[in-house]
Amino acid sequence: MKNNEAITKREDDFAKWYTDIVRAAHLADYSSVKGCIVIEPNGYAIWEKMQEILDKEFKRLGHVNCQMPSLIPENLLKKEGELVEGFAPEVAWVTEGGQKPLEERLCIRPTSETLFCDYYRTHIKSYRDLPKLYNQWCNVLRWEKETRPFLRSREFLWQEGHTLHETKEEAEKETDQMMGVYHWFFNEILAIPSIRGKKTEKEKFAGAEYTLTNEALMYNGVALQAGTSHFFGQKFSKAYEVTFTDRNNQETFPYQTSWGTTTRMIGGLIMVHSDDYGLVLPPKIAPKQVVIIPIGKDERVNQLALEYQNLFLENDITTYIDDTEKSPGFKFAEAEVNGIPVRIEIGARDLEKNQVTFVRRDTREKLVVPINTNILEYTKEILDIIQRDMYERAKKRRDDLTFNAHNLDQMASILNKQPGFIHAMWCGKVECEEKIKEIRGCKSRCILEKAEKIDEKCVCCGEDAKHHVVWGIQY
Amino acid sequence: MKNNEAITKREDDFAKWYTDIVRAAHLADYSSVKGCIVIEPNGYAIWEKMQEILDKEFKRLGHVNCQMPSLIPENLLKKEGELVEGFAPEVAWVTEGGQKPLEERLCIRPTSETLFCDYYRTHIKSYRDLPKLYNQWCNVLRWEKETRPFLRSREFLWQEGHTLHETKEEAEKETDQMMGVYHWFFNEILAIPSIRGKKTEKEKFAGAEYTLTNEALMYNGVALQAGTSHFFGQKFSKAYEVTFTDRNNQETFPYQTSWGTTTRMIGGLIMVHSDDYGLVLPPKIAPKQVVIIPIGKDERVNQLALEYQNLFLENDITTYIDDTEKSPGFKFAEAEVNGIPVRIEIGARDLEKNQVTFVRRDTREKLVVPINTNILEYTKEILDIIQRDMYERAKKRRDDLTFNAHNLDQMASILNKQPGFIHAMWCGKVECEEKIKEIRGCKSRCILEKAEKIDEKCVCCGEDAKHHVVWGIQY
Repeated sequence: MKNNEAITKREDDFAKWYTDIVRAAHLADYSSVKGCIVIEPNGYAIWEKMQEILDKEFKRLGHVNCQMPSLIPENLLKKEGELVEGFAPEVAWVTEGGQKPLEERLCIRPTSETLFCDYYRTHIKSYRDLPKLYNQWCNVLRWEKETRPFLRSREFLWQEGHTLHETKEEAEKETDQMMGVYHWFFNEILAIPSIRGKKTEKEKFAGAEYTLTNEALMYNGVALQAGTSHFFGQKFSKAYEVTFTDRNNQETFPYQTSWGTTTRMIGGLIMVHSDDYGLVLPPKIAPKQVVIIPIGKDERVNQLALEYQNLFLENDITTYIDDTEKSPGFKFAEAEVNGIPVRIEIGARDLEKNQVTFVRRDTREKLVVPINTNILEYTKEILDIIQRDMYERAKKRRDDLTFNAHNLDQMASILNKQPGFIHAMWCGKVECEEKIKEIRGCKSRCILEKAEKIDEKCVCCGEDAKHHVVWGIQY
Repeated sequence: MKNNEAITKREDDFAKWYTDIVRAAHLADYSSVKGCIVIEPNGYAIWEKMQEILDKEFKRLGHVNCQMPSLIPENLLKKEGELVEGFAPEVAWVTEGGQKPLEERLCIRPTSETLFCDYYRTHIKSYRDLPKLYNQWCNVLRWEKETRPFLRSREFLWQEGHTLHETKEEAEKETDQMMGVYHWFFNEILAIPSIRGKKTEKEKFAGAEYTLTNEALMYNGVALQAGTSHFFGQKFSKAYEVTFTDRNNQETFPYQTSWGTTTRMIGGLIMVHSDDYGLVLPPKIAPKQVVIIPIGKDERVNQLALEYQNLFLENDITTYIDDTEKSPGFKFAEAEVNGIPVRIEIGARDLEKNQVTFVRRDTREKLVVPINTNILEYTKEILDIIQRDMYERAKKRRDDLTFNAHNLDQMASILNKQPGFIHAMWCGKVECEEKIKEIRGCKSRCILEKAEKIDEKCVCCGEDAKHHVVWGIQY
């Protein structure tokens, strides 16, 4: 079967294949606003599904949503030195409003630590007001030079959690807990195997004491940061003068965290799972899990299609019947390019043989199923199998592209052949990170919590190694 | 019972009462960003509930969500003359990005007709691509001079539907249908009786052929526009060169609509239903419908509280137990100020008498209920009764503040005594609208579809009347 829209082969040109998938599946498109994209309904539906699942989990853990302004006055942004240094080069400034120049310019939020601190400052008084477990879903702007739909654009959508705690322990527990949520979401829901660890000092979030990260590997061996969780200690609360009266009646500073995930996850989904025929979505994140395609005009066929649809919908399997005027072949290709996990084809000739055809999107395998099968159970099982198989295939691919390196030459020779995750020991010095970066821009992805002690010495300088680090070329 | 936070009496100072409610119920607060507010978790939860209900209805009617950029290049905004005239005075301009002045300034979207047209222009080719039924939930900015939480602020949240149709009839049907959704939402969900009609030429949306509106009356007799739906004809599609090939193979312009509702609805909810004790929410929009307050430390009490909670949650009644360390009196007042529709108090002494106490938030009535009652059915019934009673009370209030006027003196004398809805006939001339506006800024709210012919002549000039209009002083 051929697709109705030309998709470059993944092996030929990965970058072009990626943008072809984005366009062919109608996920997003460029806009007349330089650097900004339009998230089209098919793409936005994936984001809505991501929001639904994450939001439910955030709330289960006691978080509540709110909404801060999207503008930040310059003086407010400047209060925390590292943050402003980190973000100042990439903000957009509003300088006119209501036909007048503004007295103070306002930047469009690149992230909202400043606004949350400003709010918390006047809203906490005592330890009884803690913890504050706030999150917001919103748009942010960072003035990027390149544009790649979902991966890099000046505006993107995200969620940013900002929490305040009485004690260091509680805040660190929160930082770790939310990284756990992201790790679960990537592995269990997006079927993307990923690695948890800590960012190095060089790679941590501007202003954080430390940053936890979840790192995934794309099909082409390039790494993608997939969710980060930051522990701020009292840094921001001191800079923004957020204080509370503790249990000993002392005025003190709360401990703070923030954590976020973005529409970039959609890019990750594509780059891990899709193929030359279009989008492939794990059933747990697919906005529509099953499409039923009746073939020909036949009352019994339509009847059975409707029956299946109702059965599935009643059991929370998102389903639709494609009863448009298009040809069956066109409908098949469309369902395929859009990544619907399961396609059920029902034709009059099939019915005569008392069978229907299931097609798995991930393997494109055709399964002829007798109609006296328990179709609901069969469909549930197929969806589970697809989810599991997609994870296993992604894991195998990642493992195939994961290497150990014992010295710099080895690291270079691996990365020059094929990007991937490189496990190697590191002394902890930024000079070594910088030297390693000379190899195709390779960066430390994260410091593993459970070190394997591949070597005694740093992969770069040969001095005593402190950390087991995963390295990679990143998006 | 007294509130834990001072709320000005509604009869004494309505404006202050309103902001006191917003603060006391922790719905929103001012921010360090002039003109912008923080929507706090209690307020945002109401918005989430509004989104959930409206979004489900939009989707049931075939709409899909997407996301356009939040910035609009100046040349794009300027393509439709009336729109730019209407919005230019109140936009904010981004003039610097990435530490450089921009070649072309970008405004933050005050509304997104321009961006949707720009997108549709390259995405529709044939009648087969129509209709396009897109909606987005997002933030918009309008550079207002005053700030009143939810009612008027520089930034607010809303949904904006933008649809494209093959024929005029279909587009007009959509315009009317979506006004129907808003009317249903206000009456059935928010328990706010409201009037449907058409805006006059003077009051319609900049660039629309006509605007349908839903108009509500606040407790103080001031009118609030509550959802609008615009028919654009081919105006925008011509200005933005959006064309398609019709069934006769002719290149032609599609017909367009847009429709929106905003976080202002939260302001309306407050001003229609709340009282001197705090927020009052209709059960259908209350994020939490029932609070259970166990009194004293008693195992049987806690057991019953938990049992009720589980029973309610299983039956989709949002419920929580307030088992914090606060005193019962404090908990009662907090539930009251936050507008939880039903409060259930369970104490050991009650249990000895085989009873529990229900308290209705709307009437503050205490209901002693034998514990052998079917508590689930009883609670459902109470919630239904509260919803209905709140609507009826709001309707009675509105009707009490609705008057007929036969001449300008009458209109002035009514409005000078008490703002409200004034029904009066109108000739259709803008001069008369302007003259009427001299009475405390009174504006036409809408032209009623079903005219009652109160008089033969215009209330202002005495010439032949064309329309039955509802007038009022607005927020």
